[in-house]
Amino acid sequence: MTGIPIPPTEVRRHPDRARYDRSAIDAVLDEAWICHLGFLDDGHPVVIPTIHVRVGDRLVFHGSPASRMMRWLRAGGPVSVAVTILDGLVLARAVFDHSMNYRSVVLFGKGEVIEDPAEKLEAMRVFTDKILPGRWDEARRPTDKEFRATTMVAVPIDAASAKIRTGPPMDAPEDTALPVWAGQIPLRLAAGEPIPADDLPDGVPLPDSVRRLLG
Amino acid sequence: MTGIPIPPTEVRRHPDRARYDRSAIDAVLDEAWICHLGFLDDGHPVVIPTIHVRVGDRLVFHGSPASRMMRWLRAGGPVSVAVTILDGLVLARAVFDHSMNYRSVVLFGKGEVIEDPAEKLEAMRVFTDKILPGRWDEARRPTDKEFRATTMVAVPIDAASAKIRTGPPMDAPEDTALPVWAGQIPLRLAAGEPIPADDLPDGVPLPDSVRRLLG
Repeated sequence: MTGIPIPPTEVRRHPDRARYDRSAIDAVLDEAWICHLGFLDDGHPVVIPTIHVRVGDRLVFHGSPASRMMRWLRAGGPVSVAVTILDGLVLARAVFDHSMNYRSVVLFGKGEVIEDPAEKLEAMRVFTDKILPGRWDEARRPTDKEFRATTMVAVPIDAASAKIRTGPPMDAPEDTALPVWAGQIPLRLAAGEPIPADDLPDGVPLPDSVRRLLG
Repeated sequence: MTGIPIPPTEVRRHPDRARYDRSAIDAVLDEAWICHLGFLDDGHPVVIPTIHVRVGDRLVFHGSPASRMMRWLRAGGPVSVAVTILDGLVLARAVFDHSMNYRSVVLFGKGEVIEDPAEKLEAMRVFTDKILPGRWDEARRPTDKEFRATTMVAVPIDAASAKIRTGPPMDAPEDTALPVWAGQIPLRLAAGEPIPADDLPDGVPLPDSVRRLLG
């Protein structure tokens, strides 16, 4: 597997939407709650959704050591990770010019197990605070058994690109006079009313992490 | 490429969350606006976001015939497609038991170019009405040139599984008495106020498709 070259990271379709700076890449990685990770099973591509966090210059994944994805990552197999945030629908006059606004990152690399306990604990903190900032300080910390049951693997953010579409539809000039509404419909992931667990003891207040999310 | 076996579709992590019936699979495929498609580039996995539609028993992808993904699909290379809808954050008492609610589908298969013009036009209609139901009847239909510039490839929905997590956190019994708030925060993709194109002529009304989306 080590001889497989990393594919080019250049964005070839709509290169005007490409960004290669780490600030653009990190912003997408940090905002998205989930990613899609691609690996191989007996030579066949497999894509599965998973949770990622960025810790400095590395993207970190966690899971049971027995999972197919983790076994591939632990073995240092090449992976591709895509992170996509859908920002809106783009309605043009022409069917052909319909589009979506989005921010995405595609990354290539290989995993490396995080063995150092302090680094691993820090990655756990980042995972927990990514779900909701501040949650690490509210919830019960991992026991030794839980700590050992989680494998953490890091992939360096070396070979990555972002692709971002923003703004209005791009109709051909001869279409703009058509009596067809054109524009953008923004989309965002919105949080609804919290649903407390049925077995929550009386008097446990909604925590600050949730209050901040709900604004 | 033809000798590569399709990986098992059984869900092995959390098999209690698995669904193999087409109604569960189709519901996820039909609701999600985007998917992530995995293919190979010189043996290396590549995952990219793209738009899909379901037309009967097939998942259809479109794009420029020159794109790397389309060339792979047209050549009949094996792909994996993952579709994920994030439904909520699951906050447990223990850091270790935090989770997310989601509905996902993972599918394996090979592409087949849609050559028949009537089938291709029907797929275009489904793409347009997926962005917003009713949009096909509002927007300008494809010209012959636009029709030819789009390649459509179909992958049969044969080897697929859905994985669905719903409901509250699953804390260990000894954790439920902790004074830590636990529950679910629902998430949904919400549409905001439409932004008309700057060059929209006066008097073009907001169409029914957008009005329905905004409820």
